[in-house]
Amino acid sequence: MRAEDRVVERLRALLPASGSVLWGPGDDTALIDRPAGLLAATTDLLVENVDFLEGEDPERLGRRAAAVNLSDLAAVGAAPEAFLLAVAFPPERGEEYPLAVARGAQARAQPFGARLVGGDMSAAPLTMIAVAMWGRPAGAPLSRSGARAGDGVYLSGHPGEAAAGLRLAQLLAAFSTPGSRPMPRFPELTPEHQRRLLARYHDPEPRIALGAALASEGIASAAIDVSDGLGVDAERVARASGVRLAIEAGRIPLSGPLRAFSEMSDQDALELALSGGDDYEILFTVPETREAELERLAARGDLAVTRIGTVESGTGAVLRGPSGERDLGAMGHDHLEARA
Amino acid sequence: MRAEDRVVERLRALLPASGSVLWGPGDDTALIDRPAGLLAATTDLLVENVDFLEGEDPERLGRRAAAVNLSDLAAVGAAPEAFLLAVAFPPERGEEYPLAVARGAQARAQPFGARLVGGDMSAAPLTMIAVAMWGRPAGAPLSRSGARAGDGVYLSGHPGEAAAGLRLAQLLAAFSTPGSRPMPRFPELTPEHQRRLLARYHDPEPRIALGAALASEGIASAAIDVSDGLGVDAERVARASGVRLAIEAGRIPLSGPLRAFSEMSDQDALELALSGGDDYEILFTVPETREAELERLAARGDLAVTRIGTVESGTGAVLRGPSGERDLGAMGHDHLEARA
Repeated sequence: MRAEDRVVERLRALLPASGSVLWGPGDDTALIDRPAGLLAATTDLLVENVDFLEGEDPERLGRRAAAVNLSDLAAVGAAPEAFLLAVAFPPERGEEYPLAVARGAQARAQPFGARLVGGDMSAAPLTMIAVAMWGRPAGAPLSRSGARAGDGVYLSGHPGEAAAGLRLAQLLAAFSTPGSRPMPRFPELTPEHQRRLLARYHDPEPRIALGAALASEGIASAAIDVSDGLGVDAERVARASGVRLAIEAGRIPLSGPLRAFSEMSDQDALELALSGGDDYEILFTVPETREAELERLAARGDLAVTRIGTVESGTGAVLRGPSGERDLGAMGHDHLEARA
Repeated sequence: MRAEDRVVERLRALLPASGSVLWGPGDDTALIDRPAGLLAATTDLLVENVDFLEGEDPERLGRRAAAVNLSDLAAVGAAPEAFLLAVAFPPERGEEYPLAVARGAQARAQPFGARLVGGDMSAAPLTMIAVAMWGRPAGAPLSRSGARAGDGVYLSGHPGEAAAGLRLAQLLAAFSTPGSRPMPRFPELTPEHQRRLLARYHDPEPRIALGAALASEGIASAAIDVSDGLGVDAERVARASGVRLAIEAGRIPLSGPLRAFSEMSDQDALELALSGGDDYEILFTVPETREAELERLAARGDLAVTRIGTVESGTGAVLRGPSGERDLGAMGHDHLEARA
């Protein structure tokens, strides 16, 4: 088990069982049974040089901080209501800095119904942004633990694009430092591909509508948002549900922009898709009896949803391909290690 | 106006007015009118070397992070329900580190009814702890804006003790670095005084019961928790209420431990009380017609509550003493500057 998951399991063991906390630490989103109704609540932390590159634009950071929290609520099928924003930053960046973060977060969250209602600031030697967000579950909330053998495994969007975008942003940043070579042009990547990959890293699209539909129409048996890599998040669903998730390598939807980046950079597209992280897509499982509904749902929206595998009895998450079977649980991003 | 308050005012102006957010950014605690009932929500951030000393004990940091958020809820008279915890820390501090923070926060919050329900972790070059906490208002929530000319100005506890405790902790830390002189004994301070001052800094006591009583019995016209110094927080109440708060120097309750520290350190006790910050006491105003109820309330509990001044028409917060009148608004801690 990864360091982060180990700490979370120990944390969970530390806490007293409480009937009114339906799920607590260990899931991305807590579900609290208040006298006044269910509340879904989550918090996510972004740290400079770890979760984002040094000196990134503050408004874009605010958008991203809001998006990763919105994604957590999407994974339980909750309708966002409000959020709190805490920003630590170097005072020499100026008073505009936290305001830009707040503007970005507000702009990202408002179309989904979540309003900024409070916050805190502190001086710090580097920027750290913590968002806490809550909302109302729509229908029976989705969890990681409901997958059953025989269910199909589905994924929204195109995994690996965000990871390619991060690497592209790193290349661009390296070439744009003072005194360095002029910015490279990447002839293999069209401007449209570049924009697409950078946008998927900087400004992921929270899958709120998909999560709400999966929950309110009772379609998904389990769900998680893919933040740390398809492999490790598949393994988390498997562990929470007591099943095995078998992913078929040939079914993973590798996009054109990702393939183009892969050719240019010598980084394997499938590896980026499995372990890149930062996707903020929804990985979910669907019982066979509900697959027709899912197809109707997918036909309604313009969001790509792909069946990538099957739930089996057993444990862990595996990738099946021409060269055999591979364990996916050890891949992906560990929050206790630096990444950016 | 201080840099922090200026940013907060600009932030508030940025946000769309919304009938369902009764108070948002600018107050320490947001009050949100949900379909399911009022929710009071707050977030506070602690940064190493800014809000606490380098290398402080993580369990104690967790207690303190919970306490400062509990104090925000106390200031609006809310009953705490649950909290989220985000911890960024240097991975070389080990996996025990975030668990110790969580244990401390949980231990501090649970007696007041708030449970840890979720969190996030990230690697970082220094420790940053963000807590988001919410609860139910008891009765009509207290705000900063209800003070009226003629009201009495009251304060719980003894201001300045926490500031003295921070300075004492800094002295102890400086003397305990390897190769330094052996730890000094401070003959002017009894061990009991030392313990008291350090505890007031490390482990402030959230005034939840006082806040709830002031709100549910409709005694206070305005309230704030004193986090950045009595002077600057008095000025915030004055500004929000459109009145003047006149504090009488001779009425500020300077404790024995604070006076002893002052003699030992050459730091003026009154200055520490006015501008030290970190008190987490409740500063509140009470209409003349409710003062009898307040006295009955104070007699019931064992918490010191002192009348320290009067609300007048006008603006700002002033200190009146033998040497005349002094503006208090410019004093105290600005969160956009380093302190520890």
